[in-house]
Amino acid sequence: MDNFTFFNPTQFVFGRDTENQVGAKMREKGFTKVLIVYGQGSVVRSGLLSRVRDSLQATGIPFQELSGIVPNPVDAPVYEGIRLVREYGIDCVLGLGGASALDTAKAIAVGALYEGDFWDFYAGKQKVENALPIISIPTISAAGSESSNSSVITKESIPLKRGIRSESIRPKLALMNPELTYTVPAIQKAYGVADIMSHIFERYFTNTADVSLTDEMCEGVLRAVIKAGPKTLFQPTDYASHADIMWAGTLAHNDTLSTGRQQDWSCHGIAHGISARFDAPHGAALAVLFPYWMSHQMQHDVPRFQRFALKVMEVPEGSSPEDTAKDGIAKLRTYFDSLGLPHSLKTFGIEEKDLDQLVKDVGYNPQGEIGFFKPLKPEDVLAIYQAALA
Amino acid sequence: MDNFTFFNPTQFVFGRDTENQVGAKMREKGFTKVLIVYGQGSVVRSGLLSRVRDSLQATGIPFQELSGIVPNPVDAPVYEGIRLVREYGIDCVLGLGGASALDTAKAIAVGALYEGDFWDFYAGKQKVENALPIISIPTISAAGSESSNSSVITKESIPLKRGIRSESIRPKLALMNPELTYTVPAIQKAYGVADIMSHIFERYFTNTADVSLTDEMCEGVLRAVIKAGPKTLFQPTDYASHADIMWAGTLAHNDTLSTGRQQDWSCHGIAHGISARFDAPHGAALAVLFPYWMSHQMQHDVPRFQRFALKVMEVPEGSSPEDTAKDGIAKLRTYFDSLGLPHSLKTFGIEEKDLDQLVKDVGYNPQGEIGFFKPLKPEDVLAIYQAALA
Repeated sequence: MDNFTFFNPTQFVFGRDTENQVGAKMREKGFTKVLIVYGQGSVVRSGLLSRVRDSLQATGIPFQELSGIVPNPVDAPVYEGIRLVREYGIDCVLGLGGASALDTAKAIAVGALYEGDFWDFYAGKQKVENALPIISIPTISAAGSESSNSSVITKESIPLKRGIRSESIRPKLALMNPELTYTVPAIQKAYGVADIMSHIFERYFTNTADVSLTDEMCEGVLRAVIKAGPKTLFQPTDYASHADIMWAGTLAHNDTLSTGRQQDWSCHGIAHGISARFDAPHGAALAVLFPYWMSHQMQHDVPRFQRFALKVMEVPEGSSPEDTAKDGIAKLRTYFDSLGLPHSLKTFGIEEKDLDQLVKDVGYNPQGEIGFFKPLKPEDVLAIYQAALA
Repeated sequence: MDNFTFFNPTQFVFGRDTENQVGAKMREKGFTKVLIVYGQGSVVRSGLLSRVRDSLQATGIPFQELSGIVPNPVDAPVYEGIRLVREYGIDCVLGLGGASALDTAKAIAVGALYEGDFWDFYAGKQKVENALPIISIPTISAAGSESSNSSVITKESIPLKRGIRSESIRPKLALMNPELTYTVPAIQKAYGVADIMSHIFERYFTNTADVSLTDEMCEGVLRAVIKAGPKTLFQPTDYASHADIMWAGTLAHNDTLSTGRQQDWSCHGIAHGISARFDAPHGAALAVLFPYWMSHQMQHDVPRFQRFALKVMEVPEGSSPEDTAKDGIAKLRTYFDSLGLPHSLKTFGIEEKDLDQLVKDVGYNPQGEIGFFKPLKPEDVLAIYQAALA
């Protein structure tokens, strides 16, 4: 186990009708004026936006609104949000909706306290040191943005999808009602399941020794997600499974499962470009890439992939550790198939001729690699993309 | 899953040499003057107290000291600590050592902000609303006090052991170095393992439906503890197992494993009197009582005890669910035996004639019961005590 710092100061209020507590909780925390950041029509149609407005009005908290945030959120609304915060003297940003609204809210919260271009932080030119307090009310279970320390934005003019990480952008308050996720389309629920599982995979595949405690936790949460996932798709008003998936989404990305482990993040790194250039849903890109990433990386640590196969995918012991590992990866792909997830990059309109540019888009470190488990060089990335064109 | 609020704002700094960061971290948090609360000679002999003093002096943070806290901490030092806080204008209390030092530090932090007698909170006459900030540097892995919202103190003049729970007494900062636990005597490490497992048991045995996610987490952490526990006793400088046990002790008691579950706490409730009247180590009392508690409660939910047997104790499936459950309980007792833990109340000098008073000492609710899983009436408590005299 590596030395670690764990700090997760988000206050979670989880369960039915919790969105109605937003005004009261904001007052408790001393926030006085809020910018509500949301996406397209669904939070309006579902009445959620009205309930949030009602709760704020009932407690006398003024608010401004910024709507129209799209999936794979882009930079333009961030600039507009920063302008609103400054014009109205807002002291807190509320992300209402999916990961896009949350990620945009975080970018605004960071940019509002900075005189230059907020993109400096995403481009790695500036380190995030502080941000306005952030509140989250998620309507989809996926990215764990409601309490994570990360945000990903696409700069449209390039286009490049880049992320920031900072303790200062962890939301102070997350109001999480699993019922709000009932009406998410089945395929988006599937993307969410793939995303949640991928967040755990990035932590599970590690070189750190002596991690049996967090291995057990990663495996346990993955098993629970694998069981609950299909229920959320096929029993769209089943509270228990939606609650499991929603809370697992938080645990998967707030480092509860990864204390003292070196994390990898190379598969996310090679998935971002797929979304940026081909508008592929993030969870879909991960669902395609992760099994190929695993096959490519398996030889680096067969026992770990064997353990994954036995304990997470619950396949029977094969004729060799390698066979068991392969069975586990195959069962993961079958599982993703059962949720209707894609299994080829072709799904996104990607062809062989696009791969060179995609390989170049990846955010390599100064050594020209990405990740930590077995760092990927450009030729590894190309090999994974090629396999994933199958 | 029940609705829940989860708030665990402690900043954890975990790993080798982390105690040397105490001054720098205090400064980061804005604390200016600290009362160090510790126990008997071991933190002096080990050099830990010196290192803490050095770190505080290096960052220019003045401190006072309160020493001599004993296991099953009592009320007298709390009054003395409150006096010191007021006399020196102290704004933060550091518990250095075992659960006793931590529990005392919490009582001081609460009492210092209250004009009346601090015992009013423990006697249930006052509700804890605020407290001075608390820092913890634990030297034993057991109670999870380093980040928990609870504190237990014994009033010597009665004697009565009583606890408080409040979000305001969760430490703001916990510096946790597993190496500090190497020199804990083997039997006290065993008490710690029993205590940690008991904290999870109190959460695991629940009537709440649809808790598969947290079931998996409880089971995973219990398996890791069961494996690491003996290593800490028999390989006293093995970092990995001491780190697992130390972090598991935190997870077991900071509600990471119990979000959305109704907890029980009846076994702790009937163990407190054993410690208060017979000076039994808390973990020892729990190690004796929990298997008998389980046997007594098994019929209330055989499938849960069966699941416990299969997934936590990893016994083979028996000829009936009940047999499997019994095998699991028997294996738990064998496991506790292997750590040198006692299995009879006689160990503490308790005789049949003492039981009536012990049954009366229990803190029943207004309905004359204790716990939630299957609430215990006085006759249940007597039956468990009688069985545990075997």
